[in-house]
Amino acid sequence: MTVADLGEFGLIAAIAARLPRDGTTIVGIGDDAAVLAASPGSQVATMDLLVEGRHFRRDWSRPEDVGGKAAAQNLADVAAMGATPVALLVGLAAPGDLPVAWAVALVDGLAAECARAGATVAGGDVSSADTIMIAVTALGKLAGAPVTRAGARPGDVLAVVGVLGHSAAGLALLSAGLAEPASLIAAHRWPRPVYQAGPEAAALGATSMIDVSDGLVADLAHVAQASGAGIGIDTARLAPGADLEAAAAALSEPGPALALRWMLTGGEDHALAATFPPGTRLPAHWTVLGGVHEGHGVQVDGRPWAGPAGWDHFG
Amino acid sequence: MTVADLGEFGLIAAIAARLPRDGTTIVGIGDDAAVLAASPGSQVATMDLLVEGRHFRRDWSRPEDVGGKAAAQNLADVAAMGATPVALLVGLAAPGDLPVAWAVALVDGLAAECARAGATVAGGDVSSADTIMIAVTALGKLAGAPVTRAGARPGDVLAVVGVLGHSAAGLALLSAGLAEPASLIAAHRWPRPVYQAGPEAAALGATSMIDVSDGLVADLAHVAQASGAGIGIDTARLAPGADLEAAAAALSEPGPALALRWMLTGGEDHALAATFPPGTRLPAHWTVLGGVHEGHGVQVDGRPWAGPAGWDHFG
Repeated sequence: MTVADLGEFGLIAAIAARLPRDGTTIVGIGDDAAVLAASPGSQVATMDLLVEGRHFRRDWSRPEDVGGKAAAQNLADVAAMGATPVALLVGLAAPGDLPVAWAVALVDGLAAECARAGATVAGGDVSSADTIMIAVTALGKLAGAPVTRAGARPGDVLAVVGVLGHSAAGLALLSAGLAEPASLIAAHRWPRPVYQAGPEAAALGATSMIDVSDGLVADLAHVAQASGAGIGIDTARLAPGADLEAAAAALSEPGPALALRWMLTGGEDHALAATFPPGTRLPAHWTVLGGVHEGHGVQVDGRPWAGPAGWDHFG
Repeated sequence: MTVADLGEFGLIAAIAARLPRDGTTIVGIGDDAAVLAASPGSQVATMDLLVEGRHFRRDWSRPEDVGGKAAAQNLADVAAMGATPVALLVGLAAPGDLPVAWAVALVDGLAAECARAGATVAGGDVSSADTIMIAVTALGKLAGAPVTRAGARPGDVLAVVGVLGHSAAGLALLSAGLAEPASLIAAHRWPRPVYQAGPEAAALGATSMIDVSDGLVADLAHVAQASGAGIGIDTARLAPGADLEAAAAALSEPGPALALRWMLTGGEDHALAATFPPGTRLPAHWTVLGGVHEGHGVQVDGRPWAGPAGWDHFG
């Protein structure tokens, strides 16, 4: 059964039937727009596009993975403002010969990652197109002021929650036709950000925050620029795990260099990187990596970073 | 200059520079997510996808038109819930050889239609893709309860605000290589919904509402089904204007039949169709077209409608 067999309204009904409803969604799929319950604070909203062949490959990722990753990258953007995710809207453009089972499994992945974040899929759109394109909008609610990229101050501590370099290592393994360590390939297919660390950081007084989508150095460079300060990373604190070391060895680059490069430049893990006033008592799941100083740009072990920075979607 | 020349971050900066900011947007383009000011009521959110070759053609529409139409169809969905539009998020996937001027003009159209609706473009995403695809999310705020498709009751009055059939007539003219009446071609390229009629209808006690995106009969069929009632249209009240009559004549179908068919089945004008309790005093810009009765489906002049219904995106 293809999506063309089922038709637009049949596909929407099949998708809606997979989705749980929660008390936040006053009007869900099937009307002109979704309606979400009032919340006292300000709203957070973000959108990402995923294009087949550029952001995912159907031969490398199951549809559940594509959905889970699409949800994760958007929900992490909400968390990175210090907000709590509430709902997703999902647009799916696909060729008419796409199996309905693929579309439904995509939605299962989206819904599963939403459930991890405490959110639901509240609406969306479907259309035909020559290639698969997925648009995801994530909405969230803020208890207080947003944590932007612009508030880092000299003397602040830099800390992260979540893994670094796992997705990049998994992609390198897939590109080389390797299947182990499977944990890294799984991390590439479906990252698992620590959403609750976003509101937690806000409550702890974080002065800036970003989710690591393009790579730690590249994303911290955005924070440094927006804040008008320099940010230093101490690689002695970036201890690559056994899985990253094993992946580097499997790719014939034993030793710490490749594993460290993945941690500094690998994107798509959606770890949260935040700066905190000096003396902030951070829970143990935050790892201190360095600090903020007068100046500009990102320094790695005291030297300006000169390696490949990050990802440009038109580059 | 192409978008590939400018790069992802350059393109985002060029787009952001075109967009006005208003007091509702606490954090705009350039952070992980947009932040919008708190509003007391519930939130409305909707998304539409537009794919080149399916929803628009670059040889038939200027980029401003494509942007204006993309904004209009989403903002109208917000209005059709009885809500006031607040903000758009816009995703643009495009080939690297797309001229920057096209992308910037697209955003100009989006921003202009937002301004008509009292909203702003608050965020979005860009990506490369083989064909142009635009994803638009519209957000709105509700003063009271939403007006869904499900509340029409026998005895209610059916009324519309906005034009009917103009976009379909304009498309027929373009398909035939004709350029007149220009007003209809303009209506196809850039519809102008009457957004304020949405909250107005809610305040007047509308029992159901929908925006006419797929065609009057097709969209009222959704209302009839959701409400568990029948809806009757009296074609004597559907007086085709001189422009529709002229378009029909130009296409060698003089007389009222083609013009009426456009009004009954033409989509993309985004008129608002609503039902009101009997006796509701409607402002003059609402046109009464019929009413709600026991039963099901849509009747045109007392007979079940048997013509082509609407648009299926995978049909």
